[in-house]
Amino acid sequence: MVTDRVKQILSWYSSDSVGIKTNIARLLNHGSLSGTGKLVILPVDQGFEHGPARSFAPNPPSYDPDYHFQLGIDSGCNAYAAPLGALDASADKFAGQIPLILKLNNSDTLSKLENPCSAVTASVKDAVRLGCVAIGYTIYPGSGARNLMFEELREIILEAREHGLPSVVWAYPRGALSKDGETAIDVVAYAAQISCQLGAHIVKVKPPKDFIEQSEAKKVFEKYGIPTKTMADRIRHVVQSAFNGKRIVIFSGGETKSTEDVLEEVRGMAAGGSFGSIMGRNAFQRPRAEALKLLADVMEIHRKA
Amino acid sequence: MVTDRVKQILSWYSSDSVGIKTNIARLLNHGSLSGTGKLVILPVDQGFEHGPARSFAPNPPSYDPDYHFQLGIDSGCNAYAAPLGALDASADKFAGQIPLILKLNNSDTLSKLENPCSAVTASVKDAVRLGCVAIGYTIYPGSGARNLMFEELREIILEAREHGLPSVVWAYPRGALSKDGETAIDVVAYAAQISCQLGAHIVKVKPPKDFIEQSEAKKVFEKYGIPTKTMADRIRHVVQSAFNGKRIVIFSGGETKSTEDVLEEVRGMAAGGSFGSIMGRNAFQRPRAEALKLLADVMEIHRKA
Amino acid sequence: MVTDRVKQILSWYSSDSVGIKTNIARLLNHGSLSGTGKLVILPVDQGFEHGPARSFAPNPPSYDPDYHFQLGIDSGCNAYAAPLGALDASADKFAGQIPLILKLNNSDTLSKLENPCSAVTASVKDAVRLGCVAIGYTIYPGSGARNLMFEELREIILEAREHGLPSVVWAYPRGALSKDGETAIDVVAYAAQISCQLGAHIVKVKPPKDFIEQSEAKKVFEKYGIPTKTMADRIRHVVQSAFNGKRIVIFSGGETKSTEDVLEEVRGMAAGGSFGSIMGRNAFQRPRAEALKLLADVMEIHRKA
Amino acid sequence: MVTDRVKQILSWYSSDSVGIKTNIARLLNHGSLSGTGKLVILPVDQGFEHGPARSFAPNPPSYDPDYHFQLGIDSGCNAYAAPLGALDASADKFAGQIPLILKLNNSDTLSKLENPCSAVTASVKDAVRLGCVAIGYTIYPGSGARNLMFEELREIILEAREHGLPSVVWAYPRGALSKDGETAIDVVAYAAQISCQLGAHIVKVKPPKDFIEQSEAKKVFEKYGIPTKTMADRIRHVVQSAFNGKRIVIFSGGETKSTEDVLEEVRGMAAGGSFGSIMGRNAFQRPRAEALKLLADVMEIHRKA
Amino acid sequence: MVTDRVKQILSWYSSDSVGIKTNIARLLNHGSLSGTGKLVILPVDQGFEHGPARSFAPNPPSYDPDYHFQLGIDSGCNAYAAPLGALDASADKFAGQIPLILKLNNSDTLSKLENPCSAVTASVKDAVRLGCVAIGYTIYPGSGARNLMFEELREIILEAREHGLPSVVWAYPRGALSKDGETAIDVVAYAAQISCQLGAHIVKVKPPKDFIEQSEAKKVFEKYGIPTKTMADRIRHVVQSAFNGKRIVIFSGGETKSTEDVLEEVRGMAAGGSFGSIMGRNAFQRPRAEALKLLADVMEIHRKA
Repeated sequence: MVTDRVKQILSWYSSDSVGIKTNIARLLNHGSLSGTGKLVILPVDQGFEHGPARSFAPNPPSYDPDYHFQLGIDSGCNAYAAPLGALDASADKFAGQIPLILKLNNSDTLSKLENPCSAVTASVKDAVRLGCVAIGYTIYPGSGARNLMFEELREIILEAREHGLPSVVWAYPRGALSKDGETAIDVVAYAAQISCQLGAHIVKVKPPKDFIEQSEAKKVFEKYGIPTKTMADRIRHVVQSAFNGKRIVIFSGGETKSTEDVLEEVRGMAAGGSFGSIMGRNAFQRPRAEALKLLADVMEIHRKA
Repeated sequence: MVTDRVKQILSWYSSDSVGIKTNIARLLNHGSLSGTGKLVILPVDQGFEHGPARSFAPNPPSYDPDYHFQLGIDSGCNAYAAPLGALDASADKFAGQIPLILKLNNSDTLSKLENPCSAVTASVKDAVRLGCVAIGYTIYPGSGARNLMFEELREIILEAREHGLPSVVWAYPRGALSKDGETAIDVVAYAAQISCQLGAHIVKVKPPKDFIEQSEAKKVFEKYGIPTKTMADRIRHVVQSAFNGKRIVIFSGGETKSTEDVLEEVRGMAAGGSFGSIMGRNAFQRPRAEALKLLADVMEIHRKA
Repeated sequence: MVTDRVKQILSWYSSDSVGIKTNIARLLNHGSLSGTGKLVILPVDQGFEHGPARSFAPNPPSYDPDYHFQLGIDSGCNAYAAPLGALDASADKFAGQIPLILKLNNSDTLSKLENPCSAVTASVKDAVRLGCVAIGYTIYPGSGARNLMFEELREIILEAREHGLPSVVWAYPRGALSKDGETAIDVVAYAAQISCQLGAHIVKVKPPKDFIEQSEAKKVFEKYGIPTKTMADRIRHVVQSAFNGKRIVIFSGGETKSTEDVLEEVRGMAAGGSFGSIMGRNAFQRPRAEALKLLADVMEIHRKA
Repeated sequence: MVTDRVKQILSWYSSDSVGIKTNIARLLNHGSLSGTGKLVILPVDQGFEHGPARSFAPNPPSYDPDYHFQLGIDSGCNAYAAPLGALDASADKFAGQIPLILKLNNSDTLSKLENPCSAVTASVKDAVRLGCVAIGYTIYPGSGARNLMFEELREIILEAREHGLPSVVWAYPRGALSKDGETAIDVVAYAAQISCQLGAHIVKVKPPKDFIEQSEAKKVFEKYGIPTKTMADRIRHVVQSAFNGKRIVIFSGGETKSTEDVLEEVRGMAAGGSFGSIMGRNAFQRPRAEALKLLADVMEIHRKA
Repeated sequence: MVTDRVKQILSWYSSDSVGIKTNIARLLNHGSLSGTGKLVILPVDQGFEHGPARSFAPNPPSYDPDYHFQLGIDSGCNAYAAPLGALDASADKFAGQIPLILKLNNSDTLSKLENPCSAVTASVKDAVRLGCVAIGYTIYPGSGARNLMFEELREIILEAREHGLPSVVWAYPRGALSKDGETAIDVVAYAAQISCQLGAHIVKVKPPKDFIEQSEAKKVFEKYGIPTKTMADRIRHVVQSAFNGKRIVIFSGGETKSTEDVLEEVRGMAAGGSFGSIMGRNAFQRPRAEALKLLADVMEIHRKA
């Protein structure tokens, strides 16, 4: 049974194949938030992005790829997202228990590139082989290598489409921007718009700050009085920038922080119209019981919004 | 029924397949200007090129991709042109109501590249899937990356041809040119010539200014007394430079400006033999009623020329 | 009927397929010089290379692609060579009236590249579609990008060969050479040799000057007393450098000049054993009647040589 | 017959095909350590990496590729790993006598690259042709060229997978790291994690030193008291970082050293949970009898661990 | 009939297909040295590498591609090696009279590249079309572009193998080396080793000098007393470095020199175990009678070795 809300969301993807819509429905119809049109995703790529000790030492059972599958399943997340190796290690064992998103590109922090760009570390064929419901890809709008990433993503979306797999785009502005500019409201909204134009079915951005990076944008925000003061205001602008809310947009939590800070942030996002959260470190670096409680609380906030 | 004028225009594409000619005819036989051999196209790529707030805040309903389809349909435009995401979002809903042009490459303004070059963000396969009548591609003649763009375009035209899709080339000189040089009459005419030589079926350039950038060209303009004083003079030279008028050339309006300024410019273009206009911001950033009126007036000018 | 001279020329291509030899024969058996083993080709790529006004303003009917086909036909040239767009515009109208050579790569002069390199602007598939008898490709020996060009040419010759199309190589030394060095006798002969080694069926070079660029070559020219004083001397060395005269080598006329200067130059070329001329600007920038007269005179010189 | 330990190891690769698991089993079921779940591999790529005299002059019979096959067979190693030419030279002669790993990329030391990167010198097709049980590939995490290597490896793993061949990844951090940092415990563990995430079935790293390179990692090692003092401590952390011990990790011996030093190091590795050793120069540069004794001693240590 | 020596040589290529072995046998079983296991090859790529006058003016009949085929045939060489154009020009005329090696890449000396690298100017498909017994490829170990060359060669060997064509590798160290280092004994031996590891069936290097370039190598040559004083000593080390003599290694003569100097050098090579010579300029730049005499003398030296 598909709820009216899920049907409405699927209607925004009407140019897509039934296969794509079926997989979006699988995402929306799994876990605690099944059928609400809201979603919470557990992503675990920090082993690649920050190294194993920084990622898993705070909660040593999390060194094991099985841990994250079980956490995603037990917490009632809509999906679990990870790089190739981590999915390969446990996908067979947990087959059919939670929708999977294969993250196709990843960066490490052993050294820096002049133009930030992730390596494509897995293929659409791997996603098909592992029974995934979607693929994930990270773009860095603002990077000198952005055209390369946009073009890789084009090819990947095209190939994923042939297999009925929707695309989740992680959009992290980076490169020719100030540090604050990476999460400026104009920049985050711009990144969401670009992701939608590139063909993303689901967009993942960071929660925007009350700061405007680009002077041309600043003039427009002021002239038309676009509110940016509260988190809800800013989320609303980002959602509007994602085809007037007709693309699923979710927000990450960023760095580890106190439980109350996490929940407060999520309340702002929910109030602004976020479709949900994607929560990695704040979940798996906590002891399992705490993580389950936190994820349940986050889901409850989204359910009630 | 195909008018004599449309038949004449199609005769210039006689080396092309019936499929290509059929799609050019579809463009020319739709909307208010159907059958006149003139055309007005609504292009909306500013979300990608300038960001969402700068593009859509002046007229907030335009955040929604549906808005532009409806505007293109109701105004009687010959076609609507947009990037992949925007077409994907609404093409199914408005199927068969307006000819579509998929813009295959796009630039953003989050950061600058040393050698200006758009990213290829969609594929000919997407255009086929979405029922488009043509593909669009932007070249930057004068850029250090122009050879790359010319070669990408060659591949795209070849592939589009296999699907009976004509190619619309946006030719924006940029790179090793002065700021005025980007719209200098010699440079714009050169860009139109290059586009035609590359195999463009339809060429889109900016209205040229009364300025000559290249010293070698200046000598020739003076020696042979090529007139460049009025907009009509300059449009005439550009049309002549597009295979003596045997390729469809249309002109954009550029930055938002007053209604009278827009119409005055269009009158000059029409007098010089332009095949029509392509008008984005000046249309969709106005309130809908104003936009409909403006587009109707523009079409009337072209019809009477 | 194939003349003995044409049979002799074809014998130098005996490792090639019948298809290739048939197309070389079509070139040699068309127009005023049919069967003589000499050839005069009309090339029109200046619209792309120098811009429309510089190319066509001296003789405005030449803005029209049809003009050049008609000029090539009426003057009795062996072939007409042009970029994709120009051939596409008129090939159907003049089908079967003159052998066509599709120039697959072209440069523009809107800006300069650090390492001179033309863009590949058309494909062998286009040549097949347009009924061409050969493809053309320009290399810049001496450029820092020469390896790229040599490798592109290798791929193109291989693909053209599969379609029975011979390859005409325009060899213009450029890059790490003095200005005079670009047409130095040692350099032009070297460029002809490279073209032959790369697999060119027909080589087109500029008329060499009485100047030696490379010191290692200078020693050899002096030691072995290779004459370079007259045009005929120099042409003879270039023809010898093209597999001892077993590859067709033709020479361009370069910049527009007086009729007598053109003819004097052609007489020198003919005396030195050139297989013919390739004459663009000197033909189409003159009024049509003058151009027809000039081309007839040029052909007469080659016929009598 | 497959032992329980081997069955357990194979269970960690349950998402993989039977073909991949069969080849991992072949590796684990060959030689002196057959069935123990431990493995010792003989790798000989030094001829390419350091040149012939530096590699083989200490033991001249080793100039002959046959020598290494025979040493691997007689010593009871689980496998012999080498570049294309060395395998090609002797694989037919020793067919079926020892599992082979084809090293697909190699570096030489005739000159340095700005961004360290090996050349891909052989193909998966070669591995299939030569009857190999696995392919090997070296990555340099930390190099400015790492993305290129990660992406090549992705393609190679994908292709190898189609042929049922598991992938052995040599992970040598290099580039934007201090000299000590290349074998720092945090860096080696990070390299192991990256290899696993990229899809490596078997990971080969250098023995880590009691040194932490990255300041962010240092904080975490201190905060959570991760022990790094003994070799066993450090090996334990690396093995944990390789999916909590669910990927096979083996360690090299590095530079030639005294027999006792080698064995002492191996004892530390074995105590820390290493799955085995990969030992090149320390084996083949010794006289054959000594090498056989050393390898037997190393195997004995691993067997007893 | 295949001699025992040829059978022995073929046994070193036992992992290869019968097709490859058949073509190696064709090389070894042709000409004056047929069946001896020795070979002398006539290579003519100087027209491309040094230009036509520098190459052919000393003996003008050599401007003609037929000349070299006839010289190779009449002198009893085992094979003739040349670039595409030269083979194309005469291969049909001399079909079946001498084994041919198509040199797939070539450099010119019109300008220098920062990282020395030849252009790939012909394809394996051309070698098949022209009835060749092998392909040739030049690598520059030590060049900043060496990885590119090694990877191109990998692809070429793979493709050649599919057609039963063995690969002859010209290994010329160049780039980050001193001028003397390019022919230093350690460097030449290293280049031979690399070629063998890359899969070369036959290796061609320059005669090494009594000089050691790399300090790490110097220590080893001294420690193990590797003799380098005589040409025979050095050749012996190079042959040993080519899989202990299990790959065919031949040496070039380098610059034109006196007949006695050439023969003296060849005597040293033969004494050191060279499989033969490859002799270009020293042959074809001499008058034909002298060249035939010289080649006969060289063959006699190798036969008696």
